[in-house]
Amino acid sequence: MDDLFLKIIRGEIPSHKVYEDEHTFAFLDIKPVGPGHTLVVPKTQSRNILEIPENEWLQLTKSVRIISRAIKEALNADGVNIIMNNEPAGHQVIFHSHVHIIPRFEGDGIKPWPQGEYKEGEVEEVAEKIRGAL
Amino acid sequence: MDDLFLKIIRGEIPSHKVYEDEHTFAFLDIKPVGPGHTLVVPKTQSRNILEIPENEWLQLTKSVRIISRAIKEALNADGVNIIMNNEPAGHQVIFHSHVHIIPRFEGDGIKPWPQGEYKEGEVEEVAEKIRGAL
Repeated sequence: MDDLFLKIIRGEIPSHKVYEDEHTFAFLDIKPVGPGHTLVVPKTQSRNILEIPENEWLQLTKSVRIISRAIKEALNADGVNIIMNNEPAGHQVIFHSHVHIIPRFEGDGIKPWPQGEYKEGEVEEVAEKIRGAL
Repeated sequence: MDDLFLKIIRGEIPSHKVYEDEHTFAFLDIKPVGPGHTLVVPKTQSRNILEIPENEWLQLTKSVRIISRAIKEALNADGVNIIMNNEPAGHQVIFHSHVHIIPRFEGDGIKPWPQGEYKEGEVEEVAEKIRGAL
């Protein structure tokens, strides 16, 4: 089972690499939300957070923390967003686990998703369902 | 230095808790992007990914993975987004590290952020800057 990101990691497809260690690889997204938008991926294939083994997930998030700080410093950004999209309903397009790091700047015009409200009694019901699966 | 999330963790402010372990605490966001929108926070105060110590970050992300799977299962969601906002320019409002888990459903109408393009030569320059900070 091969995929685009494995080809990028192996150098079969060129990328703008910013970081690499034993477990992870990071490169610029070529369709960035903004300049410096970086993807961090594990070297071993997994679909997303719903399937990735714990040790690979922890190696991945360890790198995300390090690279986030470097991006903020390097680009003199005012903040960063960390985003991971899982499954098509969550906007995932490439089915190899990946975390987006998006540098943010005051006045860049990117808007957060709209927040809503729970209906009467709904919040208790939802919390109970989630607790039941944990 | 006290904060809203420490008060929630200590039970001084009520919350809809879904998970708790030695290092982390998770509860429903009361202004959810959608039902089941959960916040996962470390029990020790840190501002965000730019300041959190590595061990606390790894405990936090370990819980995020476990709770994401539970949310998808419990709510029969089609996907999930993992989001962390860091600094006001990145939409952070509460200055205690927290990760959002947002369950997603086919046709829920939430749109991803628009993607852009690099100008000629810009992508190499940006990659070089980030590599220089790593």
